[in-house]
Amino acid sequence: MVTTAELAATVMARADRLGSISEDAGRLVRRPLTGPARDAEDLVASWLTEAGATVTRDAVGNVFGRLEHAGDGGPALVIGSHVDTVRDAGKYDGPLGVLLGIAAMAYLAAREDEGDPGLPFALEVVAFAGEEGVRFAAPFLGSRFATGTLPDEWLARADDEGITLAGAICDAGGNSDAPPRARYRGADVLAYIEPHIEQGPIVDLAGAALGVVEAIVGPERLRLAFTGQANHAGTTPMPARRDALAGAAEAILVAERVARDVPGLVATVGEIAVAPGAANVIPGAATITMDIRHADDSVRVSAVGSILEAARQAAASRDLDLVVTPEMEVAATPCHGAVTAAIQAAARRTGMGPLRVMTSGAGHDAMVMSSVAPIGMLFVRSPGGISHHPSESALGGDVLAALRVLIATVDEVATKVRAGSFLARSEVVA
Amino acid sequence: MVTTAELAATVMARADRLGSISEDAGRLVRRPLTGPARDAEDLVASWLTEAGATVTRDAVGNVFGRLEHAGDGGPALVIGSHVDTVRDAGKYDGPLGVLLGIAAMAYLAAREDEGDPGLPFALEVVAFAGEEGVRFAAPFLGSRFATGTLPDEWLARADDEGITLAGAICDAGGNSDAPPRARYRGADVLAYIEPHIEQGPIVDLAGAALGVVEAIVGPERLRLAFTGQANHAGTTPMPARRDALAGAAEAILVAERVARDVPGLVATVGEIAVAPGAANVIPGAATITMDIRHADDSVRVSAVGSILEAARQAAASRDLDLVVTPEMEVAATPCHGAVTAAIQAAARRTGMGPLRVMTSGAGHDAMVMSSVAPIGMLFVRSPGGISHHPSESALGGDVLAALRVLIATVDEVATKVRAGSFLARSEVVA
Repeated sequence: MVTTAELAATVMARADRLGSISEDAGRLVRRPLTGPARDAEDLVASWLTEAGATVTRDAVGNVFGRLEHAGDGGPALVIGSHVDTVRDAGKYDGPLGVLLGIAAMAYLAAREDEGDPGLPFALEVVAFAGEEGVRFAAPFLGSRFATGTLPDEWLARADDEGITLAGAICDAGGNSDAPPRARYRGADVLAYIEPHIEQGPIVDLAGAALGVVEAIVGPERLRLAFTGQANHAGTTPMPARRDALAGAAEAILVAERVARDVPGLVATVGEIAVAPGAANVIPGAATITMDIRHADDSVRVSAVGSILEAARQAAASRDLDLVVTPEMEVAATPCHGAVTAAIQAAARRTGMGPLRVMTSGAGHDAMVMSSVAPIGMLFVRSPGGISHHPSESALGGDVLAALRVLIATVDEVATKVRAGSFLARSEVVA
Repeated sequence: MVTTAELAATVMARADRLGSISEDAGRLVRRPLTGPARDAEDLVASWLTEAGATVTRDAVGNVFGRLEHAGDGGPALVIGSHVDTVRDAGKYDGPLGVLLGIAAMAYLAAREDEGDPGLPFALEVVAFAGEEGVRFAAPFLGSRFATGTLPDEWLARADDEGITLAGAICDAGGNSDAPPRARYRGADVLAYIEPHIEQGPIVDLAGAALGVVEAIVGPERLRLAFTGQANHAGTTPMPARRDALAGAAEAILVAERVARDVPGLVATVGEIAVAPGAANVIPGAATITMDIRHADDSVRVSAVGSILEAARQAAASRDLDLVVTPEMEVAATPCHGAVTAAIQAAARRTGMGPLRVMTSGAGHDAMVMSSVAPIGMLFVRSPGGISHHPSESALGGDVLAALRVLIATVDEVATKVRAGSFLARSEVVA
C-alpha cells in the first residue's frame, strides 16, 4: 500500500506542476474562469479520479471529488482549499490544501481497499475556483458560489478587460441566469477542514511545522482622505503650508504605534496616492488605505477608534480636512471547537501535538464554509513567513506531517461519529 | 497720451485673454511648441508690434520685441518672462511679466512720440516660450535657447507622446540641426528685469503690493528609495515587518521638522509611490522625492545632511535599505545689486518703496539670463500665496503699481547710463 511519505512527495511534485500553469510567462498568476484555471482544474479532477473519487464541477469551476462510504449518502466530511492565485504568486497558497486533501483521500481509499472497514461518512475534497478576489473584485468566489451565498449583484462585476463575472461564466459554458445549485447546505456537510500554508511567520518563529487555527480574523478596511492646499514647494513658507501628505504620514505612524502597543493587533497602510504628485508641489490631497485586524472584534474596534482620533488630531493641527470612508468590516470567524479538538487529538496521536493555537490574519474559504458547517484549519509552516510572493515555500517534512495529521483527523472524526459523540455539547463549547 | 491706469487695465484684460488659450478644455495648460503656444505667441507678437516694437521670433517660439533708440544698436535693456504654463495653471505665472513689459514699452514709446528725448538704449521685451519644464523635462527651455545654454542632449528629450524636442522644433518650422543663434550674449544685454507674480504668500502676508528679489533660491532635489519586504497585512505580526512606507513616513516628517526649525528653509515631499500598492499587502518598497531650498547654499547643504542622517537612522531601525539619488542641485542665483538698487529707487520715486527684499523660492528665467546680464526681479503680490493652480490671482491695483515701478526703473537705469554710472563699482557690490 502507498505510504504517506510517497503521497507527501506527490503533493510536492503536484504543487510544482500546478505552479507551472499560469496566465503569464515568467510569473504565476491564475485567475478564475481563465484557460489556465481550467487546465489546473482538469488536472485536479484527474488526480481526484485517480484517488477514487467521483468528480463533479460547477459553473464557476469548482471541482468536487466525492468518495462514497458504505452507508451511502448523508453529510460529507469536506477537505478543501482553492486553486486560483494572486498575481506573481507562490505555488502553495491554496493548492497545498487541495493536494493534501487528495493525498488523504487516496490514502484512505487505498486503506479501505486493503480491508479497512471504511469511514462512516462520505469524504469530499473540494478545489474552490476563486478565493483571492484578483479578478472581478469577488473574493471567495468559489466557496460563495458553492454555498449559495454569492451576492447576485457580483455577477455584474467586471474584470480589467470589462468582462463581467456573469459573462465569464457563460463563456465557460455555465448558465449564470439560473440560480446556482449550491453544492453545500447545512445538512450536507459534517465538517469542513482546510489545510493551508500559514502565509505568516508565527509557526516558523515558534520552530514548529504545524499550527491549528482558533479564529480567522476579519479585516476592517478604511480609506482616509486628507485634503489641504496644493502649493509651490519653493515659495510657500513652512508655517503657511497645508500639506496633506504630512498629515497622512502622521496617520501611518500612528496606526503602526497603536498596533505595536496592542498585542495581536495588526494595522497596515498598503496604498497611498497624492495629488497633484509633482516633486515641486506641496500635496493638496493624500489618500491612504488602512487595514486593521484582531481576533477579538471589540479590541479591533477600540484600536480603530484610537487611530482615527489621532489621525483627526493630526489633520486638525495642520488645518487639513479628513474624510474617513469605511470600506469593509468583517467580524472574526471562530473555528469550531469540535473540529479543532479533532485536529489536536490527531496531532497528539501522530506525535506532532499539541499544535500551536493561533489566529489566521488572512481570510480563507473556511470563513464562507462556516455558514454551512463547523470549520477547522490546519496551518503548515511558511518559512520566513513569505506570502503572495514567488519565494513562498513549504518544506517536504512539514507537508508529510500535515498529511499524517489530516488523515488522523479524519479518523478522529470517524471515531466520534461512530460513537455518536461528534459535536457533543462539551466539544461545541470547547 | 495713454495713462498707466489704462495700460494696467489692458494688462489684466490680456492676462484673461491669454488664459483662455489652452490645450485642454476646462483647464489652462499651454506647453511650448504646441498650437495653443503658437496662438499665444502670435497675440504677444501683435501686442508688441502695436506697442511700437520690431518683432522677431526663434525656433522654439521665443518672441522678441525691440524698441530701437536714437543712438541705434548697442546693448538693450530687456524686460521679460515666459508665456507657457503648468497643467491646470493660473493665468498670471509668466504672462504677467511679459504683459507688464509690453505695457511699459507702450508707455515709453508713446512718451517719446510726445517729444520725450527717449532712452539711451534699446528696450526689448521677451516672451520666453518654455519655462515650466512640463513638456520634454526641459525647464527654462526658452531662456536657455536664447542664451545659447541649452544642452545639446536635451534636443533628444521626448514628451509623453514620444515627440522629441528636436522633432517638435522641426515640426514648428525651425531647424534644430543648425546651432541656435543665441539672441542674448553678454555684450548684448544691459540688464534683464523680470516682473513676476510672487507664487508665494510673503508679500501678501506683509500687506504689501510688491517685493524685490535679492536671490533666486535653487532647489536641491533628491529621490529616497526605501526597500523592505512586501508581506501579508493580516498574517505578519508587527515586530516581523519591514514596512517601507512606514520608513518613508518617518522621512517625510523629519524633513518637515528640520525645515520648520531652520529659518527660511523649505522642504517638500511632493511625490510618493509604493509597491506592490494593495490595501492588504505591507509595502515592500516606497519611493519619495524631496525638494529642499534655502537662500544660503551652505545652510541648505547642512539641512540636507541632517534630514538624510535621520532618514538613514529610520531605515536602519526598521531593517530597510535606503538608496538616496541626487537628482538636481541648483545653487542660489543672486540678483544684481545695480538692478535691485534701480528697482528700489524707482519704488521710492513712485511712492511704493522701499520694497520688501525677499528671496524667490521658485526658479525663473532670470536665473538663466544671469549668465549673460545683470538681473533683477520685481514681485507682484499673490493673494493667498496660491500658485500653479487655477485660483491664482493678481489685483488690478498691484499690477498698476508694478507697471509704474517698472517704467520708473527703466528711467532710473536711463539716468544712470546717461551719467555713466550704471554698474559703477559701488552698485555692483551693493
